[in-house]
Amino acid sequence: MDCIFCKIISGQIPALKIYENDQVLSFLDIGPLSDGHTLVIPRKHYSRLDQMPADEVAAVAKVLPELADAVICATGAEGYNILQNNGKVAGQLVEHVHFHIIPRVSDDGLGYRWNAKKYPTGKDQEIQRKIIAELK
Amino acid sequence: MDCIFCKIISGQIPALKIYENDQVLSFLDIGPLSDGHTLVIPRKHYSRLDQMPADEVAAVAKVLPELADAVICATGAEGYNILQNNGKVAGQLVEHVHFHIIPRVSDDGLGYRWNAKKYPTGKDQEIQRKIIAELK
Repeated sequence: MDCIFCKIISGQIPALKIYENDQVLSFLDIGPLSDGHTLVIPRKHYSRLDQMPADEVAAVAKVLPELADAVICATGAEGYNILQNNGKVAGQLVEHVHFHIIPRVSDDGLGYRWNAKKYPTGKDQEIQRKIIAELK
Repeated sequence: MDCIFCKIISGQIPALKIYENDQVLSFLDIGPLSDGHTLVIPRKHYSRLDQMPADEVAAVAKVLPELADAVICATGAEGYNILQNNGKVAGQLVEHVHFHIIPRVSDDGLGYRWNAKKYPTGKDQEIQRKIIAELK
């Protein structure tokens, strides 16, 4: 498998590791958006979050609060984004599920482009029904 | 408590609900970035992710794959971002932890402003050491 994150997990490629356990590895992003930009990944390869069993997502997510707290304390950042991209269209570059912890300070020029809109009347209920139908 | 999400949970304010269980509620964002933009929140009030117990983060995260899959199937989106903002500086508007599921299609104008940089020599190891020290 030609996955750069799998190679980090197997030790073929080095990384500045922050934390690891049986299911999870965390290391510094080598192309950081801000100081302390950290990645958290499952050891097992999945391309997208919707392909992961719920329990494995839980195992990754449960380390996020402690890691985020450590990143923030170490960098002195005021806040942070947790970001997880699925699909090239969503900005995913490495096709191995990864959560970004992105430390934020004032006027850093980062963040999500936030172009909120309003649903036309009835469109929101229509989408709600469709999503609920997919859950069943 | 004057928290709009706590009011949605208690039923004081309506929302277009998608899913709920003992610990988690999911509903459509009323100011969507794209069709099917969905929020997933813990029933218990926490301002930031780093204030949440690991098990409660896990409970919220474990519903994300199934919800994301349903949102994508219902909307026909090609991909999606999971985004969770902590602090005003990070774009957090409602101070009750919430995960965004943001459906993405080509040329939608959304996404994270991605200004990757390189660490000066040694700076990355210094930050790594500081974060690890905070974990201990």
